Amino acid sequence: MALNTTSGGVRHRVVVVGGGFGGLQAVRKLRRAPVDVTLVDRQNYTLFQPLVYQVATGALSPAEIAAPLRSILRRQPNARVVLGTVTGFDLGRREVVLEDLASGGSGTLEYDTLVVAGGSRYSYFGHDDWQKHAPELKSLAGALDIRSRILGAFEAAEVETVPHRRTGWLTFVVVGGGPTGVEMAGQIAELAQQALRRDFRTIDTRSSRVLLVEALDRVLTAFPESLSRKAARALEKLGVTPLVGHTVVDVADGLVAIRGPTGEVETIETQTVIWAAGVTASPLAAELARDTGVEVDRAGRVPVGPDLTLAGHPDVFALGDMVKVQPPAGATVPLPGVAPVAMQQGRYVARVIRDRLRGREHRPFHYVDKGNLATIGRSKAVADVKGIRLSGLPAWTIWLVVHLAYLVGFENRFLVLVRWTISFVTRGRGARLIVRRRD
Amino acid sequence: MALNTTSGGVRHRVVVVGGGFGGLQAVRKLRRAPVDVTLVDRQNYTLFQPLVYQVATGALSPAEIAAPLRSILRRQPNARVVLGTVTGFDLGRREVVLEDLASGGSGTLEYDTLVVAGGSRYSYFGHDDWQKHAPELKSLAGALDIRSRILGAFEAAEVETVPHRRTGWLTFVVVGGGPTGVEMAGQIAELAQQALRRDFRTIDTRSSRVLLVEALDRVLTAFPESLSRKAARALEKLGVTPLVGHTVVDVADGLVAIRGPTGEVETIETQTVIWAAGVTASPLAAELARDTGVEVDRAGRVPVGPDLTLAGHPDVFALGDMVKVQPPAGATVPLPGVAPVAMQQGRYVARVIRDRLRGREHRPFHYVDKGNLATIGRSKAVADVKGIRLSGLPAWTIWLVVHLAYLVGFENRFLVLVRWTISFVTRGRGARLIVRRRD
Repeated sequence: MALNTTSGGVRHRVVVVGGGFGGLQAVRKLRRAPVDVTLVDRQNYTLFQPLVYQVATGALSPAEIAAPLRSILRRQPNARVVLGTVTGFDLGRREVVLEDLASGGSGTLEYDTLVVAGGSRYSYFGHDDWQKHAPELKSLAGALDIRSRILGAFEAAEVETVPHRRTGWLTFVVVGGGPTGVEMAGQIAELAQQALRRDFRTIDTRSSRVLLVEALDRVLTAFPESLSRKAARALEKLGVTPLVGHTVVDVADGLVAIRGPTGEVETIETQTVIWAAGVTASPLAAELARDTGVEVDRAGRVPVGPDLTLAGHPDVFALGDMVKVQPPAGATVPLPGVAPVAMQQGRYVARVIRDRLRGREHRPFHYVDKGNLATIGRSKAVADVKGIRLSGLPAWTIWLVVHLAYLVGFENRFLVLVRWTISFVTRGRGARLIVRRRD
Repeated sequence: MALNTTSGGVRHRVVVVGGGFGGLQAVRKLRRAPVDVTLVDRQNYTLFQPLVYQVATGALSPAEIAAPLRSILRRQPNARVVLGTVTGFDLGRREVVLEDLASGGSGTLEYDTLVVAGGSRYSYFGHDDWQKHAPELKSLAGALDIRSRILGAFEAAEVETVPHRRTGWLTFVVVGGGPTGVEMAGQIAELAQQALRRDFRTIDTRSSRVLLVEALDRVLTAFPESLSRKAARALEKLGVTPLVGHTVVDVADGLVAIRGPTGEVETIETQTVIWAAGVTASPLAAELARDTGVEVDRAGRVPVGPDLTLAGHPDVFALGDMVKVQPPAGATVPLPGVAPVAMQQGRYVARVIRDRLRGREHRPFHYVDKGNLATIGRSKAVADVKGIRLSGLPAWTIWLVVHLAYLVGFENRFLVLVRWTISFVTRGRGARLIVRRRD
């Protein structure tokens, strides 16, 4: 059953797979184009991933960083939303294969132009069995799981009578020293040192240990070295122990094993391991590669041309974390897997589609790097904006303004501002619910 | 292992079971008493149940109507919180038996005075197998489940091609014509008629049917008949069909069977049944009854004396929805199972405990009925305040002010006010996430 044949097939049909930063920009920028757009996603909302870690520590509620796709596209009559899982493509017949539709069925979507923006996920370096002990910090479900585990660990420590087990409950290990890992570790330290300090009667939450494990030799490797050093110092001041040059070699129930720079392996007793490392592309990248005879790279990304189309398929675009852009000439300079790249690519693809319909030429995609931001804690951040390096309060202010500005929806922006203001003043965290405990 | 023997046992130990309206009031009113209070709950938050239905329709986020127990009691040094499930009591040894502690273990709590405030739940009239098709609208987990089902039903209808199944996705059945059922039915109608109206391209959400099933001959039986009639008319105007004098005789996957006043049984195709009927007391009521040789009533409530103590156990109080208060003389006038009763009883118990420690006498519990409120939709409500009957905007304004005033925490009050204001202006619902879909 083709889900979109009812449209009559008069207008050019664009199917966009994935309602993240890139996919949503592509849809939005087609709103005045003479096309029918169908956006497919497994979820009914777009997620502001850069703030997911704040849900994981109870600073924000899920709905404050997620906006329903249908609300966003309500006033765009040429766009419709279909909830379902894309399992593959028939590039010859120009069809997208869908399963697990909201109605329980499956179906296909026909396209004239296809835009695939499936994003990425964290990989467990081939150890998928680690996931149940170390949930990923990328989805809302992961963040809510982590929130319940962190808060539950303090609760458990409060009633735990065996000393070494109490230490295990109060030991938190964050894997991955990128922005998400750094922000997460900083937030847990703030919870332990400040927000929860007076909430318990038996334990002293300030005796918690927060370890941040990073395989490379410094945290925030996307930033200049001087800012990495500043971030590491800020983390230490908050109570985080950065373990750079360390690799996780095992994760099991109640423990994590870490190999240090000299090769020795240390086993740490911990009940809370949080995973924010090892990015791998959406499986849709491999689907596209298989159908076109190209190969994905080590991170699972499919190569696309300078105009973000698939080799031999000018009607198929792919963008964001799941692609590797091949420049017109010279070596591939990998683009960072960040929201601005995906958003610019989404807008670019929409422009190319519009230009083609008008018979106009278009230039290759060019990424405009506006800079890099990461926050560590209250009034602490680092910023690298076109070579200008900032840290402390100025960087934190920029971080705050940029993140509020890019949040989708006035209501969310206002609510997040209220939450942050109250958190800043009270040093508290408002959304501290353990909701999944009884599941 | 007794969890509280470490306190030294010098001060009078009060154990409060249940951090709902009643239990929390008891704890708070003991803050200046020379006692050590331990509050036990399965959840780490107190829930403002009267607004749970707003979470079920995406009007509010869970954290906006729930406050962490530890935050509330942070500045009460004589109170501590233990997360765990109470499975029974040893009234002879003055112990509370705990299982499923946050640490995974079990234990006991010794008391000098015990206060049991376990609340109530919805019963399925002996058909517990109905629950998986008809989630209860009382807990946060239930509300989130219902939210995903309601929003998922519209999503399913959008891609459903079989007409009668599409009708089933767009048919919503709410069981129970009390305030919760009435409010829920009204909210679904508002979603279908207004909030979601322009969000879909294939279906017209306004063609949805919302049925409200009530076994008695009118909705809101706790109110005077004139207000019941007004509420029913307001519901009909919103698009709800009240089926009074109807009883649910079967709930299965995709259908519900209802027996009408004349005895005929009608089977309705529906994918969304919401349960808000048949209140039954917490199983802790039966535990207390068994240990004292008294019997629970048909609703599972344990009888308590005029001072809310258990027969033969002046050191054991029970209160709220799970008890039936025996007056000093004459017949039992049952108290309604509403928050004000539990809160007044919680405060009363705290006062009795303080009086006893000072050797003072105390009077029997007396409920001060401040009135009854129920909302139906935007600017629509009914109020019965000491005989003064209000409906429409005046009743709705009182409802709004009272509910905001009783919400716990300034942050929540402010956030809910913001959400309500935005919803009122835009007729939208901000927290429309289907988060449990992939579980």
